[in-house]
Amino acid sequence: MRMYDIITKKRNGEELTREEIQFFINGYTDGSIPDYQAAALLMAVYFKGMSKRETAELTMAMVNSGETVDLSKIAGVKVDKHSTGGVGDKISLIVIPLAASLGIPVAKMSGRGLGHTGGTIDKLESIPGFRTELTREEFIGNVNKYKMAIAGQSGNLVPADKKLYALRDVTATVDSIPLIASSIMSKKIASGAECIVLDVKAGSGAFMKSVEEAAELAGTMVEIGKSLNRKTVAVVTDMSQPLGHEVGNSNEIIEAIDVLKGKGSEDERQVALTIASYMAVLGGAFEEFEKAHSALEEVIRSGKAIDNLKLLIQIQGGDPDVVDNTEKLPKAKYHIEVRSKKSGYVDSIDAESIGISAMLLGAGRKTKEDKIDFSAGISMKKKVGDKVAVGDILCVLHTNLGNTAEAEKIALEAYGIGSTEKKIVKYIYEVIQ
Amino acid sequence: MRMYDIITKKRNGEELTREEIQFFINGYTDGSIPDYQAAALLMAVYFKGMSKRETAELTMAMVNSGETVDLSKIAGVKVDKHSTGGVGDKISLIVIPLAASLGIPVAKMSGRGLGHTGGTIDKLESIPGFRTELTREEFIGNVNKYKMAIAGQSGNLVPADKKLYALRDVTATVDSIPLIASSIMSKKIASGAECIVLDVKAGSGAFMKSVEEAAELAGTMVEIGKSLNRKTVAVVTDMSQPLGHEVGNSNEIIEAIDVLKGKGSEDERQVALTIASYMAVLGGAFEEFEKAHSALEEVIRSGKAIDNLKLLIQIQGGDPDVVDNTEKLPKAKYHIEVRSKKSGYVDSIDAESIGISAMLLGAGRKTKEDKIDFSAGISMKKKVGDKVAVGDILCVLHTNLGNTAEAEKIALEAYGIGSTEKKIVKYIYEVIQ
Repeated sequence: MRMYDIITKKRNGEELTREEIQFFINGYTDGSIPDYQAAALLMAVYFKGMSKRETAELTMAMVNSGETVDLSKIAGVKVDKHSTGGVGDKISLIVIPLAASLGIPVAKMSGRGLGHTGGTIDKLESIPGFRTELTREEFIGNVNKYKMAIAGQSGNLVPADKKLYALRDVTATVDSIPLIASSIMSKKIASGAECIVLDVKAGSGAFMKSVEEAAELAGTMVEIGKSLNRKTVAVVTDMSQPLGHEVGNSNEIIEAIDVLKGKGSEDERQVALTIASYMAVLGGAFEEFEKAHSALEEVIRSGKAIDNLKLLIQIQGGDPDVVDNTEKLPKAKYHIEVRSKKSGYVDSIDAESIGISAMLLGAGRKTKEDKIDFSAGISMKKKVGDKVAVGDILCVLHTNLGNTAEAEKIALEAYGIGSTEKKIVKYIYEVIQ
Repeated sequence: MRMYDIITKKRNGEELTREEIQFFINGYTDGSIPDYQAAALLMAVYFKGMSKRETAELTMAMVNSGETVDLSKIAGVKVDKHSTGGVGDKISLIVIPLAASLGIPVAKMSGRGLGHTGGTIDKLESIPGFRTELTREEFIGNVNKYKMAIAGQSGNLVPADKKLYALRDVTATVDSIPLIASSIMSKKIASGAECIVLDVKAGSGAFMKSVEEAAELAGTMVEIGKSLNRKTVAVVTDMSQPLGHEVGNSNEIIEAIDVLKGKGSEDERQVALTIASYMAVLGGAFEEFEKAHSALEEVIRSGKAIDNLKLLIQIQGGDPDVVDNTEKLPKAKYHIEVRSKKSGYVDSIDAESIGISAMLLGAGRKTKEDKIDFSAGISMKKKVGDKVAVGDILCVLHTNLGNTAEAEKIALEAYGIGSTEKKIVKYIYEVIQ
């Protein structure tokens, strides 16, 4: 078998066999296939796509390129949740204690964020004492005992994806649905998930800018799940503006606490309950979505949800008192109000710009080596549909840095102010299963 | 400027600016742009093509990547000729003495062959004593004095093309018309040509399998020539079967001698006269093609053409007596007759297979290090349209090798024998200028 022939075949729009896909992934992982041949194949895939079968086989070949996590010692059906990422996305912080409160074992492995704000792991580390480095035994023990644990990814999971992602990043081949889908699904499967609920974001703050593209990615991932015998549901949700009102790290923790207490933003409540409901259905706690949804609403009402977050914080070494005394979380020195220069209605908020502004304030990482300032971030005082007058506060920037001129400018320009009121139609666009 | 953005732009189907193209060619030549980014761009070009302007600017950027040959000391308009390559293609051997006999200065720089048979330089070296390594002074002196010289390419011409071609060869991106066209034209321009006549082959033995593709390549090269102020004519000629009756090295010299003596195969006579006529027109010897053609026929009839070949051989150190005593050329030990197993009419001869068979007999190089056996080759006794009976000789294989089973099998299978007579329509399909 020759890599040259594999590139030619894909370039000509033909389907690759399982053996050809394995040959490529194994050869690329072990270094016998050079970067330039992989780059040519990736660009051919960008243009010619991959069939459902090819995408599933690529996923499995990537899973087999490294170690996999054995969760067989956890009783019950293990459910995982994944988001394609967005600005202000704190849904994982909400659904872990929620789903666990219904008895679903949630064994969540999560990466660190590289970009606008921290990842879930980073956000949790803004809670004093919270440990995200668990041994395999602690992790499995906690899930068995408390139905929940969250830890950073460890071990050599999916090395093929690490290498391929780095190459895609410099060859303009990130933007390919089969490549994105197999990258995400290979990591979930290697982490031991049996059931997967995917939150696929669509809009200005998401990788997929349109609902159609997001739905296509969602459909592709659900197909991979089916092909590889993992029950998979994908929910396409809105990211045309930041989710909720808080963008950052410790301020996102506070907003997650609010939702678990039955307060918080309506968009986050709806998305979190939908995701958690599907986790409950796939995990076998309920047969019907509606029943799972009602049960979760009751769990919030009864206070069991917020108690479960306290429990999660406690068992992972953090101070559970932050839930009731949020001033114990890191706080920034400066709070800069960004005020409107126009009057009218907010008709758009470029979520990516808000993310970039937050990163400039210290909330995210530009490079792997950067340290996150947990107290930095943005509070969105106005969102799409809100009425504003000249001088009204649009958002507040939290930071410990002195020079915030660029962040202020970007945040202000992120707001589009029009003359007519815009109604938000939906927070959830589609469910694909 | 970032290579990533250049890849993205081309991937999205946009036109690259002159500065972007130069940035890529300069960076790739000096090693600051890595192979994998170049490979991704090449594959994007494969899918999205390049405009006329981009292709011309790519050509010029490649020319400027290395040295160029200064032919300004040669008086008159320098005309070059290039063939995209085929099986049994000895046209250069014929047109150099032909065009020169009309006073056109032919300064031919030629590469060695890698493939089925040798290149023009290799074929000429089958003449005892013939030197193809000339100093720059000898080369220019001979063209000024005798109107002709042929030498192997020397110096660091178009290093960008060398590097890019090697990369295209392993990334399945050879097959792209703007990349092929700019590769050929950059070498011609760097070699100092002012006027270029291109012989673009179409058919089973050519790189371009169809007349349409060949015409597209021809048109692209003519456009490059126009953009860069080089008078360029492209002739699309037939390569659906080997050209003439001889495929190899010394046997091709004999066939070229025959054509210059007014004998030889009709296809070669027509192609050679057409190419040489356009050389005469571009070089300014005649205004009209027809007049140049008549003059060239007269040059053959009068014996001036063959005398000029003798002169070329003599001034480059070879034995001119081979022209009249061809038995002085290398001869193979074995001559194997390949006989038909069917009766009917030859309706196709796969030229590439004949080329491969000739290579197996020793006539070509598989790798740069291989030595060519000048005496090896194939004589085509039957060509398309000929009637054959079972047992008739289709072709004769010449070799010094003992085991010829595979070469025999391939040569036999190259012949397609049908029940109805096939008329060859054309040797020359199109002229683009």
